[in-house]
Amino acid sequence: MSKNTNKNRLKKVVCVGGGTGTFVVLSGLKKYQIDLSVIVAMADSGGSNRIIRDEFGLLPTSDIRQCLVALADANNDSEDLLKELFKYRFHQGEGIKGNTFGNLFMAALSDILGSQEEAIKKTGQILKIKGKILPVTLTNSNLVAIYENGKRVVGEHFIDEPEHDGRIRIEKVFLEPKSQANPETVNAILKADLIVFGPGDLYTSLIVNLLSDGIVEALEKTKAKIVFVLNLMTRYGQTFNYSAKDHIKDIEKYLGKNLDFVLVNSKKIKPSVLKSYKKNNEFSVEDNLDNDYFKVVRDDLLSEKETKKVVGDVLGRSLICHDSDKLAKAIMDLI
Amino acid sequence: MSKNTNKNRLKKVVCVGGGTGTFVVLSGLKKYQIDLSVIVAMADSGGSNRIIRDEFGLLPTSDIRQCLVALADANNDSEDLLKELFKYRFHQGEGIKGNTFGNLFMAALSDILGSQEEAIKKTGQILKIKGKILPVTLTNSNLVAIYENGKRVVGEHFIDEPEHDGRIRIEKVFLEPKSQANPETVNAILKADLIVFGPGDLYTSLIVNLLSDGIVEALEKTKAKIVFVLNLMTRYGQTFNYSAKDHIKDIEKYLGKNLDFVLVNSKKIKPSVLKSYKKNNEFSVEDNLDNDYFKVVRDDLLSEKETKKVVGDVLGRSLICHDSDKLAKAIMDLI
Repeated sequence: MSKNTNKNRLKKVVCVGGGTGTFVVLSGLKKYQIDLSVIVAMADSGGSNRIIRDEFGLLPTSDIRQCLVALADANNDSEDLLKELFKYRFHQGEGIKGNTFGNLFMAALSDILGSQEEAIKKTGQILKIKGKILPVTLTNSNLVAIYENGKRVVGEHFIDEPEHDGRIRIEKVFLEPKSQANPETVNAILKADLIVFGPGDLYTSLIVNLLSDGIVEALEKTKAKIVFVLNLMTRYGQTFNYSAKDHIKDIEKYLGKNLDFVLVNSKKIKPSVLKSYKKNNEFSVEDNLDNDYFKVVRDDLLSEKETKKVVGDVLGRSLICHDSDKLAKAIMDLI
Repeated sequence: MSKNTNKNRLKKVVCVGGGTGTFVVLSGLKKYQIDLSVIVAMADSGGSNRIIRDEFGLLPTSDIRQCLVALADANNDSEDLLKELFKYRFHQGEGIKGNTFGNLFMAALSDILGSQEEAIKKTGQILKIKGKILPVTLTNSNLVAIYENGKRVVGEHFIDEPEHDGRIRIEKVFLEPKSQANPETVNAILKADLIVFGPGDLYTSLIVNLLSDGIVEALEKTKAKIVFVLNLMTRYGQTFNYSAKDHIKDIEKYLGKNLDFVLVNSKKIKPSVLKSYKKNNEFSVEDNLDNDYFKVVRDDLLSEKETKKVVGDVLGRSLICHDSDKLAKAIMDLI
């Protein structure tokens, strides 16, 4: 009986990330009968987040906002509109433009409820999200990067959109001040069946989630299998000239343990697309992997849509991305 | 059969106003099985409305926002929070503070839908309002007042919160530029069974609704009975030293027809409350009415709550107000 119940319980899948790649993977996985959560980075410092942090004294919520939209289960006209509103960025009103509706929604609700953590949960209820959104930490910290040339950059935004030479590799990253993992997040890691890293910016979306005290310890203890979804393209400022092996080396350094699976797109990217990325010093990631202590799974994971931004108002520079459904299927095949 | 259907159809009650008094009357009337609508003034120019008008190029929505909150039918935690959010005024964020969440919600939705009128309707659907909110006009106009001393003041806000001597009577008001009545509003007036004016500021909440081209014509044609709810207190800047008769004289001047009923509170207001109003040059309205071509209905219509603001963030100077339930019952007794 107990064994049967155990067998029938929903598999616990935990995604880790925050940006556009996380939007893609969540959009696909939410269609499956699983117990889905997402661990979201809380150190973003750009745009609407700057106002939320500096002027409201709150934690940044843009990554959370994207996850809310990805997981929102809109079943009628009103719910659709609420979801649309969450994607909306104001472009009028002195002092208002640049802010996203979703961030202002959560800021107002944080004030009403007296707790940002509670506000994030209630927003999830209002949007009827399929899954759980877990801020990796509730400490307000900044991401700090030390580069190979000794340069020190503070603030996720300046790592993500470098004003320095983005070809220089990152030597080390950490959070300042030190940050404590959210206990609910630790708990989700401990109980997970599968933990999915990526796709996403290696440092500012993925590794940033490993830097709060308590996360690596939880990862060490968990019995969950660890999946890494290799990015399609390198990122100027974070992974310039990185091969697949370089990605894995860096993430494992912060993970403190080995990966179990690496998901790699095997579909060729069109030359015209590659050319457009090249202008930004970005290139397709060289697949130099062999099966090792981890298993490499190669498949066509590429979205057929090009130049279409995944979320209307966020960065929007990606010209290609993973396909939500193909990626979700590849992940589900690992369970 | 047709007669029977006719008898069973819901009575059409149309409230006219926009401010705190309208919030009170709608909160009471929404509990009845009636076909309820509210005609809302669209010329407010203060606070959050200034930004909505000047920076977003939209019509002001603060009065609409109050009506939405009054009519919202919150049945669970999420719906309650959405209603709370609509009452919320930001007090942080340079350029954001002073704005109400509800106004920003409707501004964003207007941009998404490409129509403010549509956005107001959809917002009503999202908040599951019990009733219909009808902007009196979709023309962006300002209220202009000419005073007995010849002074001309432009903008509802400066009439409502006068910077001049508020004891001087208003000689004439009009809208600038000329404004066309919203066809849906005209239709509601034509089909109404009962039209309720007030309680509310005589000029900036009630008469302002009579100034768009087409409203008076519709009122002339309608078979609806017209009710005027007499204010409890005079208002410095609009009705200083006004008796009940003065109120009626002014509203009938713009209405172009006679009232059918006047609802008057007969419960004495406490001396301590009167004292607090006196500091603002405001006094209880002298009831010098006799039954005339209209019927005067006197009853205890006073709220027992004092100093409690009806809507947390709006004006909030009222120390007393009508009681929603008593007022609604008195109105329903007229049908």
